[in-house]
Amino acid sequence: MTLTIALDAMGGDNAPDTVVRGALNAHSLGVEIILVGDETEIKSRLDGQGAKAHHISVVHAPTVIGMGDKALVALRKDKETSMEVSIRLVAEGKAQGIATAGNSGAAVVLASRHLKRAGLGRPVLGTFLPMGHPPAFLLDVGANTDTTPADLVGFAHLGSAFYENWSGEANPKVGLLNIGGEKGKGDKITREAYNLLAQEEGLNFVGNVEGRALGGGVGVHVVVCDGFVGNIILKFAEGFGSAMLRFFGIETREALAGKWWAPWLKGTFNAPILATRKRVDYAEYGGAPLLGLTGAFFICHGSSSAKAIFHAVRRMKIMVERGLHE
Amino acid sequence: MTLTIALDAMGGDNAPDTVVRGALNAHSLGVEIILVGDETEIKSRLDGQGAKAHHISVVHAPTVIGMGDKALVALRKDKETSMEVSIRLVAEGKAQGIATAGNSGAAVVLASRHLKRAGLGRPVLGTFLPMGHPPAFLLDVGANTDTTPADLVGFAHLGSAFYENWSGEANPKVGLLNIGGEKGKGDKITREAYNLLAQEEGLNFVGNVEGRALGGGVGVHVVVCDGFVGNIILKFAEGFGSAMLRFFGIETREALAGKWWAPWLKGTFNAPILATRKRVDYAEYGGAPLLGLTGAFFICHGSSSAKAIFHAVRRMKIMVERGLHE
Repeated sequence: MTLTIALDAMGGDNAPDTVVRGALNAHSLGVEIILVGDETEIKSRLDGQGAKAHHISVVHAPTVIGMGDKALVALRKDKETSMEVSIRLVAEGKAQGIATAGNSGAAVVLASRHLKRAGLGRPVLGTFLPMGHPPAFLLDVGANTDTTPADLVGFAHLGSAFYENWSGEANPKVGLLNIGGEKGKGDKITREAYNLLAQEEGLNFVGNVEGRALGGGVGVHVVVCDGFVGNIILKFAEGFGSAMLRFFGIETREALAGKWWAPWLKGTFNAPILATRKRVDYAEYGGAPLLGLTGAFFICHGSSSAKAIFHAVRRMKIMVERGLHE
Repeated sequence: MTLTIALDAMGGDNAPDTVVRGALNAHSLGVEIILVGDETEIKSRLDGQGAKAHHISVVHAPTVIGMGDKALVALRKDKETSMEVSIRLVAEGKAQGIATAGNSGAAVVLASRHLKRAGLGRPVLGTFLPMGHPPAFLLDVGANTDTTPADLVGFAHLGSAFYENWSGEANPKVGLLNIGGEKGKGDKITREAYNLLAQEEGLNFVGNVEGRALGGGVGVHVVVCDGFVGNIILKFAEGFGSAMLRFFGIETREALAGKWWAPWLKGTFNAPILATRKRVDYAEYGGAPLLGLTGAFFICHGSSSAKAIFHAVRRMKIMVERGLHE
């Protein structure tokens, strides 16, 4: 059976352009792609692409969920948004995976509504942090707030299973994000979660992980935290990373100012900035898997590029091939 | 009256060396400094410094609080640690300010034990994030966990008063760190805090601030959050900043590899890295003020340099001169 992936063509800041281009670029991956959204808009972008578009079909959805707060209210009335139609394709077995760069809160709600839970716990959103070797997988980064200690244990199991299948790393090390290294540190939830995790069987729990280790490349494979904390950290990293790149840019221009040889070496000076951007670029990682549901589900960043969409498709293919979507 | 600052000479990874050097460098500031700790060790480092040490006196304290978890237990028995003796100097009116680079958890506990509360709420630790113009002041970064919505309102008042007096900015903009921009986003605590902050008089509350804005230079003067979240973000920024600088270093060496002109331009290539490090260097900001207590109190990073200690003294001088220690 050929693998089929549904893409919410209308989700994200630059949709449908980036999603359609990402789908076209995925023609080499050997998967079928269903683009879901405004049929006219999508087809106009597929016209003339020839063989590059042979793996793509279109399913019409008349509306789009906005990125704002009221989306969740709108969802109650409107069942024909591109996101909801995409998710239903997975629920109905017409696709094995779905990616969206739309409203991530709505994606979690809709996924929970339509897709079956694969385990007992709450669905959870994870993402790779590219600073370490191997990269650490942080979850939850935004599917849940007000998590309980038991929820964090559930996240640890989902994250551990995902990591093991993903990377082949047997018995991945699991850490608990906390404000101190020692047992007994933290707030009420993390102190209790520590005790539960330490007793839990089938987990390689290695203790608390502090923010500094998480930022610098942690040496732990899976790090669990509440979605409020994880979401803020993930967004902070984006903002802070951009700020540092901006500072490097300013300082590089400063270093070159007035140098007669600057026109010849400008590219060489800019190379480290571009290479560093690539090293911390979430787009290389293609989005965040939503775990704990049947079906491979990637929630991509709202500002996802075509490259990010392509990588999400590539990753879902791997997930499904390895049976991780169940 | 000459201003007197007590310094915990034994606190921090490189104590007493860095603390003594920081104190010596502060001779130009016109403050009296009391170094508290092992008298023999401190005096051996002051010997031969001549006029540079005229503003420094020494108070002996026989023991030191370790950086580990058990410090809080040890504190119950041992009342003569360098940190506790330093704080008592302020409580007894012999100094107007104190800085320590020792165990920050112990510092908060001891400060709360010996110093009077300046207001009604809990003491709170704040720090400047240097990415924006003006830099944002984030609090709490580690004095409290399990904060209530009312605590966050208290932090907003303390942070706002500190910022206004510090920078001269009238009616500073106050934001609430959250996972979304709109009202209604967040966990239970932040949703309720939003409502309280919006109704509170004497605050210029401007709404939620997301992690990305905080990381990139927020455009808000004061940002409040729970100490668990704030502490993790602060440490994450350190780890992530170091990782990015490391990546830039690696990529810069890569860009220079095999270039015949590399020996001549190596310094020029490294300049942007050093300048960026300086831009995000917490040492430039000299530690985190602990607000809500009588007495100027700076908690410096455990790995503080002599420069960081110097800046902490300089900042406390400003705080006391402007009456912020009351």
